[in-house]
Amino acid sequence: MTASGDAATVMRRCDVLGTFGEEPGRLTRPFASPAMVQVHEYVTSWMREAGMAVRKDNVGNLLGRYEGVDGGSSTLILGSHLDSVRDAGRYDGPLGVMVAIAAVQRLHDSASRLPFAIEVVGFADEEGLRYGTPYLGSRALAGTFAVTDLTHMDAQGVSLADAIRTFGGDPARLAADRWHGGNLLGYVEVHIEQGPVLEARDLPVGIVSAINGQARYRLTFTGEAAHAGTTPMNRRRDALVAAAEFILVVEAEARETEGLVATVGQLAVSPGAVNVVPGQAVLSLDVRHADDKIRLERSSRLLQGAREIAARRGLSVESEPVAENRSVPCSPRLAALLEQAVQELGHPALTLGSGAGHDAVVMAGITDVAMLFVRCKGGISHNPAESVTEEDVAVAIDVLGKFLELSATKS
Amino acid sequence: MTASGDAATVMRRCDVLGTFGEEPGRLTRPFASPAMVQVHEYVTSWMREAGMAVRKDNVGNLLGRYEGVDGGSSTLILGSHLDSVRDAGRYDGPLGVMVAIAAVQRLHDSASRLPFAIEVVGFADEEGLRYGTPYLGSRALAGTFAVTDLTHMDAQGVSLADAIRTFGGDPARLAADRWHGGNLLGYVEVHIEQGPVLEARDLPVGIVSAINGQARYRLTFTGEAAHAGTTPMNRRRDALVAAAEFILVVEAEARETEGLVATVGQLAVSPGAVNVVPGQAVLSLDVRHADDKIRLERSSRLLQGAREIAARRGLSVESEPVAENRSVPCSPRLAALLEQAVQELGHPALTLGSGAGHDAVVMAGITDVAMLFVRCKGGISHNPAESVTEEDVAVAIDVLGKFLELSATKS
Repeated sequence: MTASGDAATVMRRCDVLGTFGEEPGRLTRPFASPAMVQVHEYVTSWMREAGMAVRKDNVGNLLGRYEGVDGGSSTLILGSHLDSVRDAGRYDGPLGVMVAIAAVQRLHDSASRLPFAIEVVGFADEEGLRYGTPYLGSRALAGTFAVTDLTHMDAQGVSLADAIRTFGGDPARLAADRWHGGNLLGYVEVHIEQGPVLEARDLPVGIVSAINGQARYRLTFTGEAAHAGTTPMNRRRDALVAAAEFILVVEAEARETEGLVATVGQLAVSPGAVNVVPGQAVLSLDVRHADDKIRLERSSRLLQGAREIAARRGLSVESEPVAENRSVPCSPRLAALLEQAVQELGHPALTLGSGAGHDAVVMAGITDVAMLFVRCKGGISHNPAESVTEEDVAVAIDVLGKFLELSATKS
Repeated sequence: MTASGDAATVMRRCDVLGTFGEEPGRLTRPFASPAMVQVHEYVTSWMREAGMAVRKDNVGNLLGRYEGVDGGSSTLILGSHLDSVRDAGRYDGPLGVMVAIAAVQRLHDSASRLPFAIEVVGFADEEGLRYGTPYLGSRALAGTFAVTDLTHMDAQGVSLADAIRTFGGDPARLAADRWHGGNLLGYVEVHIEQGPVLEARDLPVGIVSAINGQARYRLTFTGEAAHAGTTPMNRRRDALVAAAEFILVVEAEARETEGLVATVGQLAVSPGAVNVVPGQAVLSLDVRHADDKIRLERSSRLLQGAREIAARRGLSVESEPVAENRSVPCSPRLAALLEQAVQELGHPALTLGSGAGHDAVVMAGITDVAMLFVRCKGGISHNPAESVTEEDVAVAIDVLGKFLELSATKS
């Protein structure tokens, strides 16, 4: 297989995986869904084709192992996630798994073994679409899966424990998913940038310096449902109007704070009838910044703002932290190897921050992590318009291959 | 049956009907639902008990006929609706049907016939919960049912035509539901006030002068879905933030305009994930005022405001009128008879406007209409806390009985 052939294969495989979703006409692939079963069938065969032994753990991660020369006393993990957001693009997640498989395929095709084993992981859940809490897959592998999460319900009232069972796992044995394969050399993830930097600099790839910290909250404004025709404006306790005021406060705070992004992505209104003043509004808040201190300060100010809005309007508000991940620096050792690989292939080695969270955040709990970003068109992601070029993917495969080669000589 | 016994029966019957809904633990009874089938069984037996011949028309209205002395060349229609909003109270709608049945029961118990027939109607849909367009029941009876509505889909993707079929009607024969029983003397509806006026004046009942005009719109803000972590605030085209700004404009406009109420009761965000900037927000707008000119002016200003918000934010917005009902004056002739009945029973006859829409709005298209409001606690409706007293219900039954007596002597 030629180098450019590898990239074409990766592109085609991302196309194929992009056809498996839960909703007609758009790519929505939640944790432990029937669509994920189909994806696993394809990825398993591709992993085997690249000489890997494949297993699925309890949470539903798919792991392909390519042994090293000595039977592998140390292991390097490569990977990304196989789930998606709602109405997603086809590269966020799967691209990193496909590039990792392509790199192993090259070793297999040339009958090469490295001084360490490689384990390619397709994580079961990174986006948190189905249960609101992200990183279910990497948290199981890192041993930080919270058993209290097992009682979480999805929108259809299916508990996380039941979803795991349906998908073939045993929720009682999630602890066994924790990495127990001996010494880890690191976790390296290839991912689309999801931002505009590489495109602006005209570069195919970039090396991640750190991943921004992020926190997610759930806020519930409670007022009083009332008749939309007979309740005078000054007697209303409209939960949606309070939520609307909060959403604008969130936007204003983020606009005023350099580097802060804050998003209300979900909002559910109850009772939700045309002619009823909303009695309750439940919304999500996602706050991110490279500096944890600034993020925490601003989050706390936003939650205080919600309380003030509610109090002024005679409503109550409850806020609940759903997930938090501190800012995670990438390993200087691994990043330096990635930089060297990029440069040896004739590209400038640009270092950049990650605005998005990644499985690397969780994997940093058990090993050194590094990430290689691939340019994506317009910086667009979480959207069907997500787009990468085959040329850039070819560079990513080459860089990962060179990185493995450099790691082999230095290990 | 004693007069107070009648009221106790009405209270008990409202309790019984309030147990039939679609959702556990709360009263939600949409058009043509299984819960409505159960309600029809009970109401049918109560109508028969009161000497009425009962039929169901194609749209699903339940009609009980009590013949007049001469076989009934003229008919007076009494009634209200049997559907509910989501998480409703038990009196909005059913009370009017139960009071009408109680009034007929008295005639039947005393073997009295009036010079005209009475037809008690339990309308199939007034709230519009399931299909967004209200008054499906009265529009069928008034001959103003729009066949184009038959293709509307509910949240489960069931068309209105199919819902009618499932409920036992023939959507092709809706025209046959139009009133064809000869001369109509009027339509009189008893209903809870759903507002604070009667309570403030310490009166059990009041006579409605006119029903406020109302319009409903559906607005769709379309921006661009984007990653919540990597899309800088100044590059976002967030549909939910635009919707939030609009919601506050709606509130401000209504607060500044005497007598105007404007409500956003529904809001759906797409794609609706915690970590995705919303690309689309669809919301409902309900605007009401006693003066149609003011309502239209303000509605038009609000829709213009939505366009300005969208334009400033680089989004698009589409607004679609869903339903409109002009302000409807009640018949001075029928209102005078109600006033006389109230006064002869020893109560002051207060005349008041209706902020809520009612089936009387639609029935005004084919006959004179009048309404009697019953005091409700705190003016609360569209809420499980909806409450009326048995004493006030007894007054309402007496007033309706006296009204029939006065009508008989004047017809």
